[in-house]
Amino acid sequence: METDTITAISTPIGEGAIAIVRLSGPEAVSITSKIFKGKNLQEVDSHTINYGKIINPETNEIADEVMVSVMRAPRTFTREDIIEINCHGGMTAVKRVLEMALSNGARLAEPGEFTKRAFLNGRIDLSQAEAVMDLIRAKTDKAMNVALKQMDGRLSGLIQRLRQELLETVAQVEVNIDYPEYDDVEEMSHEMMRTKTKEVHEEIEKLLSIAKQGKILREGLATAIIGRPNVGKSSLMNTLVQENKAIVTDVPGTTRDVIEEYVNVRGVPLKLVDTAGIRETEDIVEKIGVERSRQVLKESDLILFVLNYNDELVEEDEKLFAAIQGLDYIVIINKTDLAQKLDLDKVKQLAGTRPIVSTSLIEEEGVDALESAIADTFFEGELDTGDMTYVSNVRHIDLLKQASKALEDAMEGIEIGVPIDILQIDVTRTWELLGEIVGDTASDSLIDQLFSQFCLGK
Amino acid sequence: METDTITAISTPIGEGAIAIVRLSGPEAVSITSKIFKGKNLQEVDSHTINYGKIINPETNEIADEVMVSVMRAPRTFTREDIIEINCHGGMTAVKRVLEMALSNGARLAEPGEFTKRAFLNGRIDLSQAEAVMDLIRAKTDKAMNVALKQMDGRLSGLIQRLRQELLETVAQVEVNIDYPEYDDVEEMSHEMMRTKTKEVHEEIEKLLSIAKQGKILREGLATAIIGRPNVGKSSLMNTLVQENKAIVTDVPGTTRDVIEEYVNVRGVPLKLVDTAGIRETEDIVEKIGVERSRQVLKESDLILFVLNYNDELVEEDEKLFAAIQGLDYIVIINKTDLAQKLDLDKVKQLAGTRPIVSTSLIEEEGVDALESAIADTFFEGELDTGDMTYVSNVRHIDLLKQASKALEDAMEGIEIGVPIDILQIDVTRTWELLGEIVGDTASDSLIDQLFSQFCLGK
Repeated sequence: METDTITAISTPIGEGAIAIVRLSGPEAVSITSKIFKGKNLQEVDSHTINYGKIINPETNEIADEVMVSVMRAPRTFTREDIIEINCHGGMTAVKRVLEMALSNGARLAEPGEFTKRAFLNGRIDLSQAEAVMDLIRAKTDKAMNVALKQMDGRLSGLIQRLRQELLETVAQVEVNIDYPEYDDVEEMSHEMMRTKTKEVHEEIEKLLSIAKQGKILREGLATAIIGRPNVGKSSLMNTLVQENKAIVTDVPGTTRDVIEEYVNVRGVPLKLVDTAGIRETEDIVEKIGVERSRQVLKESDLILFVLNYNDELVEEDEKLFAAIQGLDYIVIINKTDLAQKLDLDKVKQLAGTRPIVSTSLIEEEGVDALESAIADTFFEGELDTGDMTYVSNVRHIDLLKQASKALEDAMEGIEIGVPIDILQIDVTRTWELLGEIVGDTASDSLIDQLFSQFCLGK
Repeated sequence: METDTITAISTPIGEGAIAIVRLSGPEAVSITSKIFKGKNLQEVDSHTINYGKIINPETNEIADEVMVSVMRAPRTFTREDIIEINCHGGMTAVKRVLEMALSNGARLAEPGEFTKRAFLNGRIDLSQAEAVMDLIRAKTDKAMNVALKQMDGRLSGLIQRLRQELLETVAQVEVNIDYPEYDDVEEMSHEMMRTKTKEVHEEIEKLLSIAKQGKILREGLATAIIGRPNVGKSSLMNTLVQENKAIVTDVPGTTRDVIEEYVNVRGVPLKLVDTAGIRETEDIVEKIGVERSRQVLKESDLILFVLNYNDELVEEDEKLFAAIQGLDYIVIINKTDLAQKLDLDKVKQLAGTRPIVSTSLIEEEGVDALESAIADTFFEGELDTGDMTYVSNVRHIDLLKQASKALEDAMEGIEIGVPIDILQIDVTRTWELLGEIVGDTASDSLIDQLFSQFCLGK
């Protein structure tokens, strides 16, 4: 248990009306009292807001006019005493207040250290802590819903239930072995193992089956736009950006320019890969060569392959078709406002079961159909975040895969009659792997590493 | 008086641990109650923090997990009911919460509208409101101190006292005119006017005499570095940036890159003019020609003119000396580590009373002396923000100049025996001009225009 008091700026860096300096720890109230001129914070009720000034206790100089929120343990995010100092926005004020806290006994918090304390003090488990960060980084509403549910403990609950079932099975088998009241104890134990491992394995597989969707919601769909020069790749990108607005600018009243990296297509965050490259060169494939582009394409979750309705299919198009075989792609036949020269039958043959959408981007036609095709490719129609428990985190997915594998080993062992105490090892291993998701069995170094990816002040 | 309820995001846009959506107005509590799941906010005490969830009341979907601060009128910043919803940082959460507030009866606030309400509701005057924005934009500690004092009402108090004195004089003169108990009422009134206008004029001139310093603290010192190629202009800029750190990055634990536009030299914010230009061309004067550069130089508050100790003074140097005559400049004789070729006597003769500093930037020598020279040029030694009432705002300076002029007209009129009721016009005009600073006599359009320069959510 850590016992010092930490502090950090908890609002984004930049010009704004309000900035927050947060403190957490046993000395949070006493440190703030030293630098606060106003009510006696040691005596105010918990969860109250108090007007006053932050001063330098040595010089009595005023650092800023502030509102101080006092929240006493244990009914706080970290389960420690928490102080939030709402000061004026802008860097100078917040910096001065932070410096006062630092020079009067608080230590600068590591990234994620507030959330880490919430975890270490048992307020949330590891998957919930990770959800806090997902929530902050969520790029669409749906991604945020996934994170909110995870933070609410929905995934944790499911994982803990599976762990509990595995634990009970192991325990029951132990009992059977220790007190063999019946002769068929070995068979009974095998049968119990068979049922339980199958049940848990199915649930894990169910989670994994929609994990790709969860991951897409969380991280965005890396999308490459390919095609020969002048088929309309830039128009496609511009259309997607304009129709859906860049995600971070989509806030009423916000006037700031931001890098338009993500677009929100029906709740799916599309991350346009190497956008600048496409903008400038009009042709990534030609520029980097079909061979090297194959790698870029493989790293994409979705490929939008644009063809020209007004042009014949040439060898280069066929090479591109070959390059993207086995990947998730959508064929876009653009420029349908012009005369047909493209051999559609040939295109259909090359595309196989992949979706084909016709557009005239210049006439703004076919964009709806394209967006539907994108959403359908990954979510089969309307994206539902209401009832699903999504696993969205690569770490969780990886652990679930390992857990699934361990259970498969056990299931295989059951069939070929491996002794029950050997089977127990696989089941216990599964229990541990699932425990790493929620943090029960996670190592200190893993925990340190995870929280270091957080932002400051969280 | 406005009666609707406004809302806006009050923290900077970006990734952070906490974001705040603020509401102000008669419906602030009832609107938030509609979208809040937790305690009954209508019944909680004022100035309390309440844990709960923001929901969409139509679908019951959770928008975010939040802490809601309830502050009831009149003990608030706007003197209206204020709600602050602390939600998770990142754009999605804050956007959802804002949208819930908007779709349940709140209106998106204009920039500065919260502060405007504080002004309209009489909590602060106009100069204090302007100080709020200065505070947010303050680039150094000292600039912030100036803004804090102005926000605290120090300038307002002084201005109101001067106004009061003028008003009393006018009133007393009226009384004298209406009830001429004595024969020498005209002379007495003139005498009273003479004394008062002189007093007030002196105080205004005193404010104006240090206004340039205030303006520099607030807006930074536009600084141009000039000199022939290879005298060390880039080295000088790099030294200033490195020694003093770019202002906005000077926050413990901040890792973000920002544009290094300001450097903090002993509390004076130096704004390096056309830095990029200097970096790239190494020679703005040559590039744009001495004639055009004259304009650039005139717009600078400070010119750092670099000469090479290891080179003879040439015609171009003398042209530069001529170009900056009458401006605030410092001569820097660089490369003192090399052999002397420069005619120092000639330099001293050309520089006249302007300071000359010797440096060897490559050996990191002379930088301290240069920084002292910069600070001395504008603040004559240690910069003192402790006791001074600085006028830092161009609008205020302009009004003070007009007021000073009106008083001078009155004073002149007194000397040449202008009738007392004509003199009153000038004095009343002075009273009005000073009133514009604090907002008592400011027009609606001026007020709208001023607040529109504020940031959102303030």
